[in-house]
Amino acid sequence: MSDEASDRIPRGFRFAAMHAGIRKNPADDLALMVSDEPASAAAVFTQNSVRAAPVTVTAKHLKKSGGAARAIVANAGNANCATPNMAAVAKATAKAASALAKIPREQVLLASTGVIGEPMDKNVIPQALLKLWDALSTDSFDACAAAIMTTDTVPKTAYSQVDTGDGVIRLAGMAKGAGMIMPNMATMLSFIFTDAAIKPALLQSMLKNSVGQSFNCVSVDSDTSTNDTVYLLANGASGIRVRKNQQQAFQDALDELTRSLAIAIARDGEGARKLTTIDIEGASNDRDAKTLAMSIANSPLVKTAIAGADPNWGRILPAAGKSNVAFDPADVDIAINGIRVCEKGFRAEFDESVVQKTMEGDEVGIHFQIRGKGKGKARVWTCDFTEDYIKINAEYRT
Amino acid sequence: MSDEASDRIPRGFRFAAMHAGIRKNPADDLALMVSDEPASAAAVFTQNSVRAAPVTVTAKHLKKSGGAARAIVANAGNANCATPNMAAVAKATAKAASALAKIPREQVLLASTGVIGEPMDKNVIPQALLKLWDALSTDSFDACAAAIMTTDTVPKTAYSQVDTGDGVIRLAGMAKGAGMIMPNMATMLSFIFTDAAIKPALLQSMLKNSVGQSFNCVSVDSDTSTNDTVYLLANGASGIRVRKNQQQAFQDALDELTRSLAIAIARDGEGARKLTTIDIEGASNDRDAKTLAMSIANSPLVKTAIAGADPNWGRILPAAGKSNVAFDPADVDIAINGIRVCEKGFRAEFDESVVQKTMEGDEVGIHFQIRGKGKGKARVWTCDFTEDYIKINAEYRT
Repeated sequence: MSDEASDRIPRGFRFAAMHAGIRKNPADDLALMVSDEPASAAAVFTQNSVRAAPVTVTAKHLKKSGGAARAIVANAGNANCATPNMAAVAKATAKAASALAKIPREQVLLASTGVIGEPMDKNVIPQALLKLWDALSTDSFDACAAAIMTTDTVPKTAYSQVDTGDGVIRLAGMAKGAGMIMPNMATMLSFIFTDAAIKPALLQSMLKNSVGQSFNCVSVDSDTSTNDTVYLLANGASGIRVRKNQQQAFQDALDELTRSLAIAIARDGEGARKLTTIDIEGASNDRDAKTLAMSIANSPLVKTAIAGADPNWGRILPAAGKSNVAFDPADVDIAINGIRVCEKGFRAEFDESVVQKTMEGDEVGIHFQIRGKGKGKARVWTCDFTEDYIKINAEYRT
Repeated sequence: MSDEASDRIPRGFRFAAMHAGIRKNPADDLALMVSDEPASAAAVFTQNSVRAAPVTVTAKHLKKSGGAARAIVANAGNANCATPNMAAVAKATAKAASALAKIPREQVLLASTGVIGEPMDKNVIPQALLKLWDALSTDSFDACAAAIMTTDTVPKTAYSQVDTGDGVIRLAGMAKGAGMIMPNMATMLSFIFTDAAIKPALLQSMLKNSVGQSFNCVSVDSDTSTNDTVYLLANGASGIRVRKNQQQAFQDALDELTRSLAIAIARDGEGARKLTTIDIEGASNDRDAKTLAMSIANSPLVKTAIAGADPNWGRILPAAGKSNVAFDPADVDIAINGIRVCEKGFRAEFDESVVQKTMEGDEVGIHFQIRGKGKGKARVWTCDFTEDYIKINAEYRT
């Protein structure tokens, strides 16, 4: 890691990653992330009724600790979900980490991602943690971001700073996720660290807000997972407590960071070649706007049209129409990459080849405007739907 | 058409199909279907808020006629939707058919399927109808079923008979649809004919029931269309009125016919190689069961696993879990093609290669059982999700 990158890592955290043998390929599959001092901890978990053991066990830990944590143990290659020994695996992992760090077990947070329903040997992670503990360093943030990847093609990290006047607060976040991603849940794994001092209750409410405008506005394939988790640790190592008049600045920095990670996930959607941004304006309220946006974002017909660089607004209009949000098609204007393709529900005058050309790039923007007095708006991110999505998912386990 | 097939067509209906030039390829794209006498007419339309002119115009016709009809005019190649002249096209079509048949305009039913938002010349169909009128015959039922195809690979027809004691009532139905198919709407186009005599109100309630257990239990890609329509005409040409004690027999025959057409649609889903049947048992009620079934049926991760012959029940459980129907995973058993793969939420003892082998065939059955006292059950049909779906839809207009 360059000095510049290292400077962006919040103070008082150390990281380590290794290949523990949880997945078959030789890439790192285990990450340990430790705060030198107890940190305030906030978490958002999946809303799927099927929840993996790392989620249920960590939820209990946070309740017991009152929102304090020292360590995150995260693995890829196995979701530790829907197996008879999943709770035993999670507990053995937490026990091992707490012994090494000499901290209460409830200050250990867990996260797993990978295949569901495949039993794990409960001793593999505890044994690996012995090595990881000795390897902890301030330099291995990127290595952890890589170790939690599954079908991701690139590690996803983001950094932010807030100059408080009293000094600089740093934020750093990593995320993984490329499929099984859909709103109304915490989506995928993301771990965010800051050296600001913030009380747990405030940290939790800030994280929840931030997830609402970032990870919960991304959809790759409308599927949700059993393991999705976002953690935010604030250890105060900067020596700076976030004062009331700085809260908004901190929230803004956090929002920018989570949005950046969320967009990186949409861009890296399984098989995706095009980041797609969908903007809705003129709905009755923001909730309706988000429903419309997600209905478009999840439409396989819209997503395949984007893959084919086809400005087929005739799929966008009914994709909005199938949501339960009522609107009059005669009030709708649609633009693709800034070019009006539909006006008052009908084809606008436009040069198809020009729009097609813009859609051959790696970003597509769809703007869906309802004429009238509605102030509701929403922005969500998705990606195109390509043959590679099918290939990746038909052959995932083979 | 063979004598045997001809014998299955209800009496008093005639059919004709031709290539009117609405679509580029030379296949037939226009169908005219006429009852010799006024028939009772029932209809179920799309629930998309964006509706094509043939839907809105026909809905008005049926209201005006009180559920009487003589003719159906259906075209493929253009949806006649979201264009400034769509109402003019629909009205010109109805006017031409009513003049030819010497019937009130409101006894003409319309249906269109194809690209949305492309203007049509309003004279093309009226001119073609002149030729079609002369070509009407009892032999062209299959030709009409072919003329309404879009991305369908095969025409879809089904026949049924009821022996009433007084004589035989015949039913015949055709359907088209291979993509943009999802419940809560009438799904795709389907036209059903019977020579029974049944009053319009009863016919409508029977059709609605029948659609609920057939077309509304199919999902190919979770997208819905602006044009989806089911018509049922009963012209009484058999001379047999369906009496009260025969109504159930008629409903059963109609249900079998619509189910057969619905299954044909799922089997012919765009790019599909495997008809997939999903059964839910043990839910609190039938509605919850259907929600669970559709959540599994629409999961891209489940559908790609089926494409890959991968008995990955670890995707089926969370696909159910992401619906808003609560259940305890520890109560769930899952079988694929009759082999238990998940027991009480955990992997069951099973030979993966054996299940894989069965999944390489062209039918896959998923059985999702919730242990307990719940009596709710549902059966829905879908298909696997292959690279060909993407190919078909990324290149649809090019």
